[in-house]
Formats: sequence, structure tokens, C-alpha cells
Amino acid sequence: MQFDNLLRERRSVHQYSDEPISESTLGEIFEAATLAPSGYNLQPWEFLALRDDEKKATLREIAYGQDHVEEADTAIVVLGHTDPMTHAETVFDDWLAKDYLPNEEVRDALVENVSEMSEMSASDRRTWTTRSTALAAMTIMYAARDRGVASCPMEGFDADALVDSFDIPGEYEPVMLITLGYPEAEASDIENERKARRPVEEIVHYDEFDPSDETVLAPADD
Amino acid sequence: MQFDNLLRERRSVHQYSDEPISESTLGEIFEAATLAPSGYNLQPWEFLALRDDEKKATLREIAYGQDHVEEADTAIVVLGHTDPMTHAETVFDDWLAKDYLPNEEVRDALVENVSEMSEMSASDRRTWTTRSTALAAMTIMYAARDRGVASCPMEGFDADALVDSFDIPGEYEPVMLITLGYPEAEASDIENERKARRPVEEIVHYDEFDPSDETVLAPADD
Repeated sequence: MQFDNLLRERRSVHQYSDEPISESTLGEIFEAATLAPSGYNLQPWEFLALRDDEKKATLREIAYGQDHVEEADTAIVVLGHTDPMTHAETVFDDWLAKDYLPNEEVRDALVENVSEMSEMSASDRRTWTTRSTALAAMTIMYAARDRGVASCPMEGFDADALVDSFDIPGEYEPVMLITLGYPEAEASDIENERKARRPVEEIVHYDEFDPSDETVLAPADD
Repeated sequence: MQFDNLLRERRSVHQYSDEPISESTLGEIFEAATLAPSGYNLQPWEFLALRDDEKKATLREIAYGQDHVEEADTAIVVLGHTDPMTHAETVFDDWLAKDYLPNEEVRDALVENVSEMSEMSASDRRTWTTRSTALAAMTIMYAARDRGVASCPMEGFDADALVDSFDIPGEYEPVMLITLGYPEAEASDIENERKARRPVEEIVHYDEFDPSDETVLAPADD
């Protein structure tokens, strides 16, 4: 689909049909995610994709009972590794092999930089992994919609219960949940007027940062 | 452009031509960003778009001297407000007006929820704003590429110097920088083989979280 249409047609949908997503379609959606950019191409993302009914029921409880977690074909737990070093050496070997770097010394200096990043505070490391992992998450939602699959990103869940229930090691940050499924016919989240957005004039500041104290919303253009 | 092509053609580009981006094209790119999803539709994002040569030179220093910051037509400082309450009341009034909520009591309960979120730790608030703001940032990069404009997201900059130099109030988190510009002819970042990606089999875990200790990279499919 043309990106401009995709952008305007993507909505956060909570009402899903029973139509299953094929394994190949899911695979394509995740393959799209791999092409997202990330800081130093370090790709800290991991995706726990729940399709089993019992697992989705567990996640629904963790997500404060939100029905669409269970009704979705697939509920994705988007995770980010909080240690920048995890994939660094292999990634910079690839840069060197492809002439992004002039020589091994530069490669080693980059590994050293990332090694210093690993010493960041816990707060900085959470922010670091959330930044890149969210870029992949947005890509998943566009790639899904491009195949007729609706999505809903969610940040309302009990992170401690999530980590306990699904045996997620401490070095991973639960970044968000995304439910995926074909939308129900006449899903209200698609039929209703789109939620309003803060307009460009309010959010973009040319050359000087002068944010407004007022909140202005404009009809979303769809 | 078809999203699938867009996805495969988007590369992080550091070599820009002198061709200016028109104001209307920039406006379209930022309008696309407004349509990104965000937690509770709270849209914490603000964009400081630097086009003035002197301002870009200042940002280049803050970004450890990276040339492309100054050479880009526009260098965007992507900022996220760290207080979820900032736009909450207006946003939930919109939900109520559009029948996403059944009545004013539910609207007030949502405001109360978000008001509790405002009490999160500083680390949680940084992570919160980074999450939604990065979704808008990814949208900017796709909308730009859709118009032939290349981009490069950057996390390497001195956040304290940034905040000082551009008078950014303490309640905003500098999430990332994005440079925008038409690519130079034969830009090496486009001509070179794409940087390798961790393959789907390594990053997706169905129903059980079993991440690999090894780093595997596969040729990016382009």
C-alpha cells in the first residue's frame, strides 16, 4: 500500500475478528521490523509473540484485564536488551567487512565506545533500549497494516508480573505490548472519527524552542 | 511509494546534497508524525527543527563534530515531555466527544489514571516519553523517505550541552536527533551493501522466551 494511505488508515484497534494471521504473514511483519534503524545498528530488540490461548489469557491479566489481548491473534511482548555490548562486536565486524569503516582500529574504537555505554546508569540504559526498540515496534505496526492486519500498542501492564510470568531475564526491558489481528467488521476503532492530534504548528519549532503552554488539538486528517 | 519498497530503501544516510527541502515537504513530514500512536494518545512529542546554519553548527559540536549535522538541510532535535498530564484533559475531552468513552465519569477516571502516572519515578517518566516519541520519530523517517528525503537518526550527543545551548526546559527529554536532506549522488550509505540484521529466527520467540546467547547476523534483504 502507498505509505501515505497506510499512515492515514493505521488506527489502534481493539476489536479483532477470528480470522487467523498466517505464519508467513507474521514472518513478513517481523522481517520488516529487522530493517528498522537502531543506535549503532545494535538491534537490542526481542519479540515474545504469544499465540497460545492460555498464554494470551495470562498476558491479559497482566494487562489489567484488557479483553483485546486475548482476542487478538497474536499478542507481542516487545522487549529491549539493556546492555549495548550484547551484539556490538559482531555488528562492527559487519561494518568493517562492508567498508563502512576504514580499518580494524576504527572498529576497535567503536567497540570501546559501546563498552563505555554499557557503564551508563540503569535509567540511561532503559531509555537507550526503549529508543531503538520503539523504532522497530512502529515498523511492525506499519508492516502489519500494510497486510490488512490491525494493531494496538499498549503501555498499561504490570511489568513485574510480566517478567515473572514469562521468565524474562532481568537484563531485558519490557518496552510495550502490541496486539495484532484482522479487525472485526465495523470495528468502532475504525468507524469512529479518528482521535484528534496536536497540530504541526504546536509541535514543530523552527530554530528556537518555544513550546506552547496551551494544549491545542486539531481534527486528524482522515 | 509502496511501504514494502520504502522499508527496503530507507537507509541511514550521512551524505547530503545542497538541494533544499521545501517548506511544504517538511510540513508534510511533520504532519505524518502527528498521526503516530502514543500511550493514551497523549502525544508528548515536540520537534526543534534547525535549519539556520549557525544553529546547525552549534548542534554539530554538541553531536561530537559529526559533519552531516551541519550538511543536512534540517537537523531535528526530537524531544519528549516527561509529564503525562500535560495534554491529558484535552485529549480525554476529545475521546468523550467522539464516543470512545461512555460518559464523563470514565473520562475523569482516565484523567485520574494519568495523574497517577505523573507520580512515576524520573526513570519511568523518561522511558515513558521515549517510547511514544520514538514512534513519531520512526514515522518521520518513513514519511521523509516517501518524499525522497533521506534521514539519519542519532543518539550520540551531549544532552546537557544540548539543553543549555537551546534553552530546553528541564521537563523535556532529548530523545534523539534526526538529520534530513536529499542524499548526495552515489552516497556511500546508499551504494554500500546494507548493514546486516539479526534474523527473524533470532529475535522472535513464539510462546516461550528463549533468547540466544549467540549473535547471528544475516544479510539484510535489499
